[in-house]
Amino acid sequence: MTNALFSPVTASFITALANDVGAENVSTAPAERRLHARDMSAHQEYLAEVVVWPHTAEQVAAVLRLANEAGVPVTAWGVGSSLEGNPVPVHGGVVLSLARMNGITAVHADDFQVTVQPGLPYKDLNRQLAPLGLFFAPDPGANATIGGMLANNAAGIRTVKYGASKDNVLRLQVALADGRLIQVGSRSVKQASGYDLLHLFVGSEGTLGVITEATLKLWPIPELMSAVVASFETVAAAVETVVLVRGSGLEPAALEFIDATHARLLSQAEGVDLGDQPALFMEFHAAHQATLQMGLDTVQEICRSMGAVRFRATTDPTERRRLWHARHAAYEIALRAHPQQKFMILDVAVPISAFPAMVAHIEATLDAHALTGYMVGHAGDGNLHVLLPFGDEASYRVATAVNEAVVLQAIELGGTATGEHGVGFGKARFMTREHGPALDVMRVIKQTLDPNGILNPGKIFSL
Amino acid sequence: MTNALFSPVTASFITALANDVGAENVSTAPAERRLHARDMSAHQEYLAEVVVWPHTAEQVAAVLRLANEAGVPVTAWGVGSSLEGNPVPVHGGVVLSLARMNGITAVHADDFQVTVQPGLPYKDLNRQLAPLGLFFAPDPGANATIGGMLANNAAGIRTVKYGASKDNVLRLQVALADGRLIQVGSRSVKQASGYDLLHLFVGSEGTLGVITEATLKLWPIPELMSAVVASFETVAAAVETVVLVRGSGLEPAALEFIDATHARLLSQAEGVDLGDQPALFMEFHAAHQATLQMGLDTVQEICRSMGAVRFRATTDPTERRRLWHARHAAYEIALRAHPQQKFMILDVAVPISAFPAMVAHIEATLDAHALTGYMVGHAGDGNLHVLLPFGDEASYRVATAVNEAVVLQAIELGGTATGEHGVGFGKARFMTREHGPALDVMRVIKQTLDPNGILNPGKIFSL
Repeated sequence: MTNALFSPVTASFITALANDVGAENVSTAPAERRLHARDMSAHQEYLAEVVVWPHTAEQVAAVLRLANEAGVPVTAWGVGSSLEGNPVPVHGGVVLSLARMNGITAVHADDFQVTVQPGLPYKDLNRQLAPLGLFFAPDPGANATIGGMLANNAAGIRTVKYGASKDNVLRLQVALADGRLIQVGSRSVKQASGYDLLHLFVGSEGTLGVITEATLKLWPIPELMSAVVASFETVAAAVETVVLVRGSGLEPAALEFIDATHARLLSQAEGVDLGDQPALFMEFHAAHQATLQMGLDTVQEICRSMGAVRFRATTDPTERRRLWHARHAAYEIALRAHPQQKFMILDVAVPISAFPAMVAHIEATLDAHALTGYMVGHAGDGNLHVLLPFGDEASYRVATAVNEAVVLQAIELGGTATGEHGVGFGKARFMTREHGPALDVMRVIKQTLDPNGILNPGKIFSL
Repeated sequence: MTNALFSPVTASFITALANDVGAENVSTAPAERRLHARDMSAHQEYLAEVVVWPHTAEQVAAVLRLANEAGVPVTAWGVGSSLEGNPVPVHGGVVLSLARMNGITAVHADDFQVTVQPGLPYKDLNRQLAPLGLFFAPDPGANATIGGMLANNAAGIRTVKYGASKDNVLRLQVALADGRLIQVGSRSVKQASGYDLLHLFVGSEGTLGVITEATLKLWPIPELMSAVVASFETVAAAVETVVLVRGSGLEPAALEFIDATHARLLSQAEGVDLGDQPALFMEFHAAHQATLQMGLDTVQEICRSMGAVRFRATTDPTERRRLWHARHAAYEIALRAHPQQKFMILDVAVPISAFPAMVAHIEATLDAHALTGYMVGHAGDGNLHVLLPFGDEASYRVATAVNEAVVLQAIELGGTATGEHGVGFGKARFMTREHGPALDVMRVIKQTLDPNGILNPGKIFSL
């Protein structure tokens, strides 16, 4: 895609970039451009004209200033683990890779905080923090960078207890389109001082600025964990169990849902007996063994009252990993079951009370298109994914139609087009429906902070 | 204060207001204007020209549209329980009271959510929710309205576990300056869909829009609670205890600090033996009695290791209320000890590691001015208040100087000018120091959303 609004990258622009970040950190090689042309989704690829790897916040700012003056688009890039084309340079220009800004700047152990550069992958961060008994809680699965997680407000399995990325960040340094560097938020966990710019930049997908440093909230690594897997006759019974468990004050650390089709597949593939009913996977954290055990007793009582047809629970670490294996391997097993196909991964979220209606709608939609899809969801948060295999162009179009129907129904049910994957260009077309006139407010904020529209153009807002 | 930027309220403007909201909901009576001229602080009072009480979101929007076209300032008002002049109409114009929009719109019990009008006081809300076993967690003390709490991001004692107001809201309806009504956020607890306008409006103190409806996150009322009161030789030992308790995974529901001077006063006044050392008040919630008891054992061990000179703990509800009485009555007892004086209430927050340095700085500053002040803080969050008695003009000026020194030191220590009271006009002069160039970004957002500057002018930004 080209756009008359943007200027092409010229030789003199490349020279200026090289002056700012060093020639060894600038590449127009086709191989590098291809490596930054698509994310982990099946969305179309787009080639940038040049890839740059700044090493400092000042260099990021310098690249933005240069691009802003030249009218060249800039798209920030972490590791490309996103699923809606979020960091794909749809208008060409510059891909600004944060890969070489991947250090820990400061550990504030007594404050349960760490300050990092944006290119640091979160699993690497947690490996380095482990000896301190602390961890960064959001866990999207793929080893995303901190900058990418914050830019897209990534979440994951443990969000029901620890919150999403937006809930686990205190302070950001951000480079604006015109090359200013600002600090937003505070290392104080409480702040009632002016507008919450921190959360304006979190989730803005690099369209308002580029995160150059982040101070994150950490949690103590839980001493003890328990696991529960339970199956139910109906989705409604499973969801009512979710409501009762949350209402019990037990504060689950994970509350995952697998639909009947997916349960059947997992049971076949792994010899795990999930049967062919909807299942819940739960995890609880505690400081004492007795607390864990009492929690499990309460959960068992709740599951029994909801007519659970299977119930397994453990506080033993080995057994826990075995019980959860089916959930952790859910995506991989689905992939293996469709070796010749790609997958579209749907991502909607609804109020928990609407979860059964959402699941029923998805089942009906899949049936209507004679499609197989596997549901897996963060039920504690009302977040639901459908793993949708497709092969040729025709089946891709069908999958796209299913996605469209599911998203519109989620919005209709008081939910959102995306619970944790972000908008990218994959979901931009749903924004008017979801936000109504609030989208105009987003638009004027975008125009105010990025008047030339150089920051990750083509994302969030439909053209 | 008058300002050439704004137009005076005219007779025809009053007529137009009455057309929009009904004549019985418009008043220019001096008594009403005086009732909306000052908040609970000692800040100067300012009279509005007219007070209006809309009953619906559409009426709020109509008032804003009218005022925006006429160039008349509008300041939203809850119950005036703020402490930095936040809802005081410093430029006159309209006070828009939300007092008559105080209903519960919908209870979503299975979603742990409630939708309310902005004028509903939070204690009234919690009384109505109690039969459902649910509550709205932020607890600023004074019976603030939900709209006021959200507009100022109010917090309170239990924020260490449940978060501030910003963490307990999911969706808002907001009236913009030009009279548009928008919805921001989602009833889905997870959302990665476009810019986080929800948190832009939360804490914006009515300068970007007026909240006309809010969907709040609720928590299950804890089944069981325990209480701990412990005294320490030094502030450092008390704070290290806070760090160890938070690191233990016990997730305290309250972690409060009282300094030695305040402990001495409370002991004298109430016969409670807090001695004259810094003290910590803690509260823990659990679903089982045994869990509470094990938690207390762990806390006792931590306190002992930090050399606690007093330690009392209980899981008994009556004894718990007795132990916490000194903390809950801390402000009232200070008031009674200075019957002829008013109080300035300082409010800063720092990273917890800087808490001892903050306390030491306050002690030194009070000493340097030969002043008595009482510290009380939400230590789990690094939030510290100083209750500062003053009498005449001269002592008010000294208190103001102390406040200035304390705020600047908090910012110097990586903290904030206000942890939970907001900026109002009392702290506007510190914003440049705290935010640097990010304040310019706040300013352009204000100009974009409220180009005529009619929404609560004179707040957050210094003129």
